[in-house]
Amino acid sequence: MEYISEHGKNQLDKIPLDTSIPRTERFKNDPYRANTYIIHTKEPINAETPTKLLIDYRYTPDKLFYNRNHSPILDLKEDNYFVEFSGELKQTGKISLEDLKKMKKRTVEAMMMCTGNRRSEFAEKYKKAAGLSWKGGSVGNGVWGGVSLRDVMEKYFQPTDKAYHVEFIGGGQQDSADKYETSIPLEKAYDYDVILCYEINGQPLSRDRGFPLRVIVPGYTGARMVKWLSQINFRVNESQSSHHQFDYKLFLPTMELSKVTKADWLKAETIKEVNINSYICNVTEGDVIQTPFIVKGYAYCSGNKIWRIDFSIDGGKTWTQATILKNPLHTDKQTKYYGWTLWEYKLEEVKSNQNMQLCVRAFDTVLNTQPLEIENIWNFRGFMNNSVHRVNVTASSKSLNNTKF
Amino acid sequence: MEYISEHGKNQLDKIPLDTSIPRTERFKNDPYRANTYIIHTKEPINAETPTKLLIDYRYTPDKLFYNRNHSPILDLKEDNYFVEFSGELKQTGKISLEDLKKMKKRTVEAMMMCTGNRRSEFAEKYKKAAGLSWKGGSVGNGVWGGVSLRDVMEKYFQPTDKAYHVEFIGGGQQDSADKYETSIPLEKAYDYDVILCYEINGQPLSRDRGFPLRVIVPGYTGARMVKWLSQINFRVNESQSSHHQFDYKLFLPTMELSKVTKADWLKAETIKEVNINSYICNVTEGDVIQTPFIVKGYAYCSGNKIWRIDFSIDGGKTWTQATILKNPLHTDKQTKYYGWTLWEYKLEEVKSNQNMQLCVRAFDTVLNTQPLEIENIWNFRGFMNNSVHRVNVTASSKSLNNTKF
Repeated sequence: MEYISEHGKNQLDKIPLDTSIPRTERFKNDPYRANTYIIHTKEPINAETPTKLLIDYRYTPDKLFYNRNHSPILDLKEDNYFVEFSGELKQTGKISLEDLKKMKKRTVEAMMMCTGNRRSEFAEKYKKAAGLSWKGGSVGNGVWGGVSLRDVMEKYFQPTDKAYHVEFIGGGQQDSADKYETSIPLEKAYDYDVILCYEINGQPLSRDRGFPLRVIVPGYTGARMVKWLSQINFRVNESQSSHHQFDYKLFLPTMELSKVTKADWLKAETIKEVNINSYICNVTEGDVIQTPFIVKGYAYCSGNKIWRIDFSIDGGKTWTQATILKNPLHTDKQTKYYGWTLWEYKLEEVKSNQNMQLCVRAFDTVLNTQPLEIENIWNFRGFMNNSVHRVNVTASSKSLNNTKF
Repeated sequence: MEYISEHGKNQLDKIPLDTSIPRTERFKNDPYRANTYIIHTKEPINAETPTKLLIDYRYTPDKLFYNRNHSPILDLKEDNYFVEFSGELKQTGKISLEDLKKMKKRTVEAMMMCTGNRRSEFAEKYKKAAGLSWKGGSVGNGVWGGVSLRDVMEKYFQPTDKAYHVEFIGGGQQDSADKYETSIPLEKAYDYDVILCYEINGQPLSRDRGFPLRVIVPGYTGARMVKWLSQINFRVNESQSSHHQFDYKLFLPTMELSKVTKADWLKAETIKEVNINSYICNVTEGDVIQTPFIVKGYAYCSGNKIWRIDFSIDGGKTWTQATILKNPLHTDKQTKYYGWTLWEYKLEEVKSNQNMQLCVRAFDTVLNTQPLEIENIWNFRGFMNNSVHRVNVTASSKSLNNTKF
């Protein structure tokens, strides 16, 4: 199956690479990237794609996928690539990428998001939070190909009774500061859709995506989907690494930014699943919109079906339902929906200029929905902002503007 | 482990049984029940326990558990009790309860709720919905003992590649109208905590709870937890039974009660997981509260940890955090939290009588929370009401009332 239209492919090829970025020694081997990125930091690269462009593709092209990194991009070879299985296993050992690729290939459509997606709105609309100012583009949706971790566990590496967590280790060399380690509950690893992944949208992963191997944990935040995967370690407790213990955790709103040195990270909650969210992609704050106009956006949650999208043009006073676009990959037999959902709302023609506050909120099939006010969910690290997305615009009319006075 | 305090036990024994209920022929064999129930229908019995009493017990005694039925209570014997495994299996067959009990026993703490829990508030606060007027007491929390369905599948009954759903069949005789059939995705059945259950809180199930065997599907609505389980059928599609296809589904708010005959049930969404919810248990609308006072309640979701309880005394304008009570069964190794969470909020002494609107809302560890307004989630069948629970009270003062004028 083609995961991109001919139109999209042509358009994509035309996006030039930015070769101008100055490089320090440590990052000199990073690849060149699309010049459409909104760059938050260059070294390491942390960048997102404007949502107006992102929304053109149901399956996010590798080239446009958000880039979240803590260190330089590795340049690894497929030959002699091994993954080590260690810790609480009946038998530990190594398996080569070659052997993994001989196993049954599974594909899973899954969205991936940075835990800080939509963080910028905290500062814009309520109160500053610590971290990079991600807008709504640190998210993407891929069709990931690889081998199910569960299949590998069943065939080669059975956990002992003491295994409760599965730690993924990737990034730089063993003991290097560039190593990235994090864990998920063993229970989640029994989901066949957790895959050791070597393909996105039918193509090999790029280096930025984690070539030659990464893990995909559908429904979880991107922080758990380790790139350049080299080791899988079965543990009694959660990963004790700094990325796992001192980041991507949730604090009560009483933990203010000014008290950050007092934050008790070890007692805070490790973020796993993503929460339900939705975003208006092709309109930004202050835009003048020529009506009629099709508003477009995405929605996602951690695995339930997105059932209903509510749209408001009056700041949330009244709501009507937007149209959910049919996903060609969905089947009757599907019980988990890890991919994002695209939706559209037709803004009818207005007779005179009108100020509107556009709002969107999603519901899943068990009526989980998003909080109306951003104050409700502020946390000092600015994670998991899923408050109702609000965009103030002026709606104008094509016919009004065409009138000759 | 004792799941009930000595105090609780004594109190419980003192609750008399209601032997006065008139019985028609069809229901003459129903057991007698605690006279504390709020009864919605007598035949079949549909009844809940007042939340003020319910909240006295972290682990709901069988005697006080809500009773939701579509037919008379069966009177089955343990001897020669079999469960049939049929459908998309590599080998079909039967297994006796005796053999099930010889397998590894698992216990899981899990809350259970009627899909219509808190339905009454739709009519009281917004708009009538169809169904029994359950208040907040059609919920309970048990420690369920039994054998993991997954263990049984691994040992005896492996699904074929065509199995996507697991149908549970219980209730009356085969082909009887009293039979109750519903299904869950096979994926969920890989959760070791889905159990074929013969015990609650260390005691055999009562007949009302499904003696001698029922299924417990932690995190799912009670409608999937079939009592008097007699058959497990592996299927390509969801159960086609009337209880599964024509009830416990979600409709858009545009489906009004007046259009009910036009409801397209087959296209509506099957409710599986419960949504996040919380409830004020020991105060009811219009109460006069002598302050200081400890407000008590429950909260739950479909398996994440309840992380934070917000409490408001001004109708939701301002919120502070209530105290989450420590659960003695929780361990460091736990990654799923299927039991309910109990919380308390201390209402400080007021100096003069005050009208207050008490509100509660829960957050889980990924910031899922409850909608503020009940209008947002109305659906014509009144399912899954998880809007912020609001109770109007007058707070008074003990010292004020003791003053002699």
